[in-house]
Amino acid sequence: MHKIPIGILGASGYAGRELCALVARHPALDLAFASANERRGERAVLGGREVTFVAPDDVTLDRAALVFSALPHGTSARWVPLARGAGAKVVDLSADLRPGSGAEPVPYGLTEFARNDVRGAAVVANPGCYPTAILLALLPLFTRQLVAPGGTIAVTAASGVTGAGFTPRADLMFAEVTEDFRPYAVGNSHRHLAEMTAVMRALACDADLIFTPHLLPVARGILATITVPLAEPVADVLAIWREHYAGEPFVEITEHAPSLRDVVRRNVVRITAHLAAGVRRPTLTVIAALDNLVKGAAGQAVQNANLLLGLEETAGLPA
Amino acid sequence: MHKIPIGILGASGYAGRELCALVARHPALDLAFASANERRGERAVLGGREVTFVAPDDVTLDRAALVFSALPHGTSARWVPLARGAGAKVVDLSADLRPGSGAEPVPYGLTEFARNDVRGAAVVANPGCYPTAILLALLPLFTRQLVAPGGTIAVTAASGVTGAGFTPRADLMFAEVTEDFRPYAVGNSHRHLAEMTAVMRALACDADLIFTPHLLPVARGILATITVPLAEPVADVLAIWREHYAGEPFVEITEHAPSLRDVVRRNVVRITAHLAAGVRRPTLTVIAALDNLVKGAAGQAVQNANLLLGLEETAGLPA
Amino acid sequence: MHKIPIGILGASGYAGRELCALVARHPALDLAFASANERRGERAVLGGREVTFVAPDDVTLDRAALVFSALPHGTSARWVPLARGAGAKVVDLSADLRPGSGAEPVPYGLTEFARNDVRGAAVVANPGCYPTAILLALLPLFTRQLVAPGGTIAVTAASGVTGAGFTPRADLMFAEVTEDFRPYAVGNSHRHLAEMTAVMRALACDADLIFTPHLLPVARGILATITVPLAEPVADVLAIWREHYAGEPFVEITEHAPSLRDVVRRNVVRITAHLAAGVRRPTLTVIAALDNLVKGAAGQAVQNANLLLGLEETAGLPA
Amino acid sequence: MHKIPIGILGASGYAGRELCALVARHPALDLAFASANERRGERAVLGGREVTFVAPDDVTLDRAALVFSALPHGTSARWVPLARGAGAKVVDLSADLRPGSGAEPVPYGLTEFARNDVRGAAVVANPGCYPTAILLALLPLFTRQLVAPGGTIAVTAASGVTGAGFTPRADLMFAEVTEDFRPYAVGNSHRHLAEMTAVMRALACDADLIFTPHLLPVARGILATITVPLAEPVADVLAIWREHYAGEPFVEITEHAPSLRDVVRRNVVRITAHLAAGVRRPTLTVIAALDNLVKGAAGQAVQNANLLLGLEETAGLPA
Repeated sequence: MHKIPIGILGASGYAGRELCALVARHPALDLAFASANERRGERAVLGGREVTFVAPDDVTLDRAALVFSALPHGTSARWVPLARGAGAKVVDLSADLRPGSGAEPVPYGLTEFARNDVRGAAVVANPGCYPTAILLALLPLFTRQLVAPGGTIAVTAASGVTGAGFTPRADLMFAEVTEDFRPYAVGNSHRHLAEMTAVMRALACDADLIFTPHLLPVARGILATITVPLAEPVADVLAIWREHYAGEPFVEITEHAPSLRDVVRRNVVRITAHLAAGVRRPTLTVIAALDNLVKGAAGQAVQNANLLLGLEETAGLPA
Repeated sequence: MHKIPIGILGASGYAGRELCALVARHPALDLAFASANERRGERAVLGGREVTFVAPDDVTLDRAALVFSALPHGTSARWVPLARGAGAKVVDLSADLRPGSGAEPVPYGLTEFARNDVRGAAVVANPGCYPTAILLALLPLFTRQLVAPGGTIAVTAASGVTGAGFTPRADLMFAEVTEDFRPYAVGNSHRHLAEMTAVMRALACDADLIFTPHLLPVARGILATITVPLAEPVADVLAIWREHYAGEPFVEITEHAPSLRDVVRRNVVRITAHLAAGVRRPTLTVIAALDNLVKGAAGQAVQNANLLLGLEETAGLPA
Repeated sequence: MHKIPIGILGASGYAGRELCALVARHPALDLAFASANERRGERAVLGGREVTFVAPDDVTLDRAALVFSALPHGTSARWVPLARGAGAKVVDLSADLRPGSGAEPVPYGLTEFARNDVRGAAVVANPGCYPTAILLALLPLFTRQLVAPGGTIAVTAASGVTGAGFTPRADLMFAEVTEDFRPYAVGNSHRHLAEMTAVMRALACDADLIFTPHLLPVARGILATITVPLAEPVADVLAIWREHYAGEPFVEITEHAPSLRDVVRRNVVRITAHLAAGVRRPTLTVIAALDNLVKGAAGQAVQNANLLLGLEETAGLPA
Repeated sequence: MHKIPIGILGASGYAGRELCALVARHPALDLAFASANERRGERAVLGGREVTFVAPDDVTLDRAALVFSALPHGTSARWVPLARGAGAKVVDLSADLRPGSGAEPVPYGLTEFARNDVRGAAVVANPGCYPTAILLALLPLFTRQLVAPGGTIAVTAASGVTGAGFTPRADLMFAEVTEDFRPYAVGNSHRHLAEMTAVMRALACDADLIFTPHLLPVARGILATITVPLAEPVADVLAIWREHYAGEPFVEITEHAPSLRDVVRRNVVRITAHLAAGVRRPTLTVIAALDNLVKGAAGQAVQNANLLLGLEETAGLPA
C-alpha cells in the first residue's frame, strides 16, 4: 500500500517525538523527514522506528503531503507559508495561528468543536493542551448558554512536566520537581487564556475565566477542575455531556471522576460533572483529564491530519 | 530539667508518628506513652528516639499532663473525657469536636485565629489539614468583609498521600499513585466542608464555598488554590495578609507563589494572593501551602499544646 | 475469524491484569473467563475491553483451550490438574512447577532457552521475573562454559513495586516507597534462587550465585546488574550475545547500557555486557532490563501460549 | 557568643546549598560569604537564613577562618592555595586532592578512618559520596585482612539525582528520570574508582574492585550493595562492624537492611552485613546507605571542619 509522506518540524521536543511515534505506527502515514535544530544528526527510536533528526536547512518540504509543525511559538509562523508554498497541508501545533493570537484566522483544530472547518482546510491551528481539556469540558455549557450571565468560571489545572518542553531548565530537573507541586502564572497571566477566551466569546458566553495552572510531579497528563456557576438548575447533569458528545470516538463521559491513569497514552479526553452540594447558587464542578502529549498535542494533531487527508478520523490513534 | 509528660493516643498513624517525633525533639516535653491498637508492641525510631507502641488497654492516662489524640474520627470522642477525668489536658486531632461536628463546642485550635481561647482551654479541637490551609488563607478576607456578598469561593486543593492515613489500601499503593493525579469528593461532599463553613459563617461571610480535593503523587504537603470574588477592588493585595499576620511566627506571606518544597517539614503556612488580570469583576487568586502532617496536624497540635501548657508557642517547632 | 478461548485464573493481580490486556489486544485469542477470589464481581477495563472477574467457583474450565494461572504460589498447583482434566493447556505463572520447586518437571517457559520443549507441551512453567532477566543475561556464558570455574557470580537487581503484587501492604504504600530504595532478602535468601541455580547447574556451571534484589520507587521494570568472573579473556564481548540471540525477536543486545524506559510496556529483554577495566582477573559486567509484567510475566506467558497453540510466536506481543 | 566565620565557594550547587544550610544551623559557625559563578546575585533561603551568592571575584577569603570549596573538579585546586594564602583552613569537597588524584597528598577526610590526621590538618580532601558509603562499609574487612586474597569485590550502588549536580541536563529532567532506573559508567570506568582503590591498596588489600553505579528516581541518597569473598568463614558477622565502629556517633550497624529513608537528611551511614546462604565459598553481602548530600558531602565536610576548628565533632550535625 502506498503511504502518505509526512514531515515533522521541531521533531525532537516532547510533542515532536510523540508525533514521530504516532506516524510510525499509523497505517496510512509514512515519515518523510523530521527536523530538529539543536539535536540535528541525533537518532532516536520512536514508535519502534529509528528516526534521524535532520537540520532545518536540510528539510525538503515538497516531499511531504502534510507537515506537522511542532516548532516553538514565534518560529512556527515563518514555516507555515513555506510548507504551503511547497504544496503541503499544515497542522501547526504552536500558538502562532490560534484564536486570540491576532494572526489571520485559520480553522481551529479542536476537532470535536470544528470538525467541518478542519475537514476542508489547508492549514489548521492545533489547540494548546490546557485549552483542549478546558474547552472540551465547557463546550456543552457554552453552546447551551448554561453558564450564569456575568458569572466567574474558576479553572485550576495541573500538568505533567512534559508540558513545559524538553529544553533543560534548572526548575524542571528531577530533584526540583519530585515531591513538589507548584502553581504558576498566578493572577490569570497564562498565555493560553486568550485562546480559551476567544472561543468562549465566539460562543456568546460573557463569563470571566480565571485560570491557574500547576506543575505536577508526573511526566504526562493534564487534569482540569472547573467550578462553573449555572444560569439555572439542571436535573441530569451528565446527560448534557452525553448528549453533546454522543458518538464521539475520543470523548468519554463518566460518573466517576477521571484520573490521569485513565487517559495517559490514549487520544481521549475523559470528563465528569457534578452539581455542588450544600450551596445556594447552582454550581457545577466539571473535571476533564487527558494526556497533554496525545489528545492535548500530537494525537489531536494526527486526528486533524486524518481529516485533512481524507482518512478515517480515528486512524492510527490509541483509543 | 524536669520535662512535662505527654501521652499520644493513635501514635502509629502518620500524624501520630509525627507527634512522637516532635515530642522527642521538644525541649520541654517528654513522651510518657504512645498507644496503637493494631501495631501494639511494635517499635519505631521517631525523632531520633525509639518508641514502643502500647495497647490502648495499657495506657495510663494519669501519667500524662497532656494527651494528644490522633485516634480515628468517632473513636477519639470516647477517649477525650477519659483523659480529662485522669487530669490531662487534651489536644484532639480528630474531627470529633471541631466546628460543624455537632459536638459541644471546645476552642478550635486554629492557633492564629483563636489563640486566646486556646490558651486557657483544657481541651482543644485541632483543625483538619485542608481547613488549616484554606481558613488561614481566607481569614484576612473574612474578617475585613472583603468577599463579595452572595459570591462563590472556589477552592481546589491537592494533598500528599499521608493525608489519607497509614492503613493499607489498594488505591494508595505506590504503583497506583505514581504518575497519577485524581480528584475526590467531587460535588462538594468532603467532610472537612462543615468545619470550614462553620468558621466562615461565624465570621459573617455568606459566600458559597465549593471545595474539590485531589490526591497528589507526593508523600507530604497540601496546596490550596482559591478563587475569591471581591466585594470591592483592592489596591495592595498582599498588604492585607501582611497586616493581618504581622508578627505571626508561622505564617509567611510571599510575592512568589508558594510550592510544597517551601513548606514541607516546617510548621508554617505560606500564602500569596494575586488580583486576576483581564476580568471584569475583581477577583483574587489566593494560594496557601503547608505540610499536612506538621502545620496541618502534629505541628499545629504541638503549637496548641505549648499554649495549653504555658510554654513558648514556638517551642520545639521547626520554622 | 474464530478466536481461541482463553481462561485466566487469578486475573485481578498485576500479572493477571496484564494478561487480560494482552489477550484483549491479541489477534487470535479471546477471553473466556477471568477469575479473582477477593475481587469477584468487580469490573475493570483492560486492554480496552471491560472484564468482570468471576469467582473461582464459577469458572468453567472446559470453555478454555488454554488457561493462564496467575494464582499465588501454592494455590496454583492445585488448579493445573483441574485445567488439564478439563482439556485445557496451561501456562502456570506461579513458582509451583518451576525448576528447583521439587515438583514433577514440566517444560520451563524461558522461551529463548527451551523453545522446542515448550512447543510440544501441555503445561509450561512460566519463569519468574528476576530469573527471566538474569538467566537470559547469563545463558550465553553458561552454554559457552565462559564462567570461571569455582567463581562467584554477583547479581544485584532492582524491581518496580508491581513485582510485589497488588495485595495492600503498609510497606508498599506510596508514602513508604517514594524517595526510597531498599534491598530485601539480603544474604541470598530470595525464593527465586532455586530456579536460577537449577538452570545454571543443568548447564554445568558450578559457580556460586549471590542474588540481592531491591525495591525501586517505580511501578514497572527490572534491571539486573551482574558481575561475572570469566574463565578466560574475551576479545569481542557483545559478539557472544549477538551470536547467541541472533534472530530472536524479543532480545535486544545494545552497546549502550539499557534503562527501564527502554523496555517498559514491551515484551523484550535488553542486554549489554562490558569487560571491567583496571582489574587483574577478566570480569564482565552484564546488564539486563525488562518489564517485570510483560517479558517478566504476562508477555512471556503469551509468548509461550502462542507456541502451545501453534500460533506465530510474536502474535499479539508489543515489541 | 562569637561565631567562627566560614566561606563557601561554589555555594549554589546541591552540595554548596547543603553546606549553607548546615552552617546556618550550626551553633558555632557563621557564614561570611557564599560564592557562585553563574548564579551570582541570586538569593536563596537555606537552613532558614537568606543567602546572597556573590561572584567569585567579590570573595574576600581573608574574612573566613575556614573555607569549604564545593567548586567543580579541576577548578577547586586553583582556589585551595588562595584560601590557604589568605590564612583560611580548607575543606575541599572536589576530587582534586583526593587519594588517587595524583595531587600532593593531604589528609583524606573520611573522618572515621583518618580522624587523627584530619584533626591537625590545614587542608582536608573531603571524600566522594560513593567512596564514603563503600569504604565505610569495607574498612572493617580491609583492616582485618578478611577479604579473600586475589578475590573480586563486586559493588553496585545507586544514587539520587542530586549526586549528578544542579547544572541543567536533558537526561536529568524530571520526565526523563521518573519511572526510570539506569546504570552508568558500566565496565568499571567511574572516576571515583581511583579514590577507593587507593585506600584499599593502602590497607594492603589486593582484591579487584568492580564498581557499577546507577541513577535512581529519587532526589537524595546512596545505597551500595557489596558482594565480598571472605578469606575465611566468620561466625558473628555484624560483630565485626560493631566492634570496628564502637562509639562512632555517625555510624549505625543494623541487623535489618538499611533503606534510603533511614538515612536521608542525617549525617549517618547505616550498614548491615549478611553471610550468603547456599554457597560454597564464604561470601558476604554488605549494604551501606547514606545521604549523598549530608554524610556523603556537606555533612561530612562540616564534621571535618569541626575537627579542624577544635569544635565538638558532632556540632551542628543532624544525627
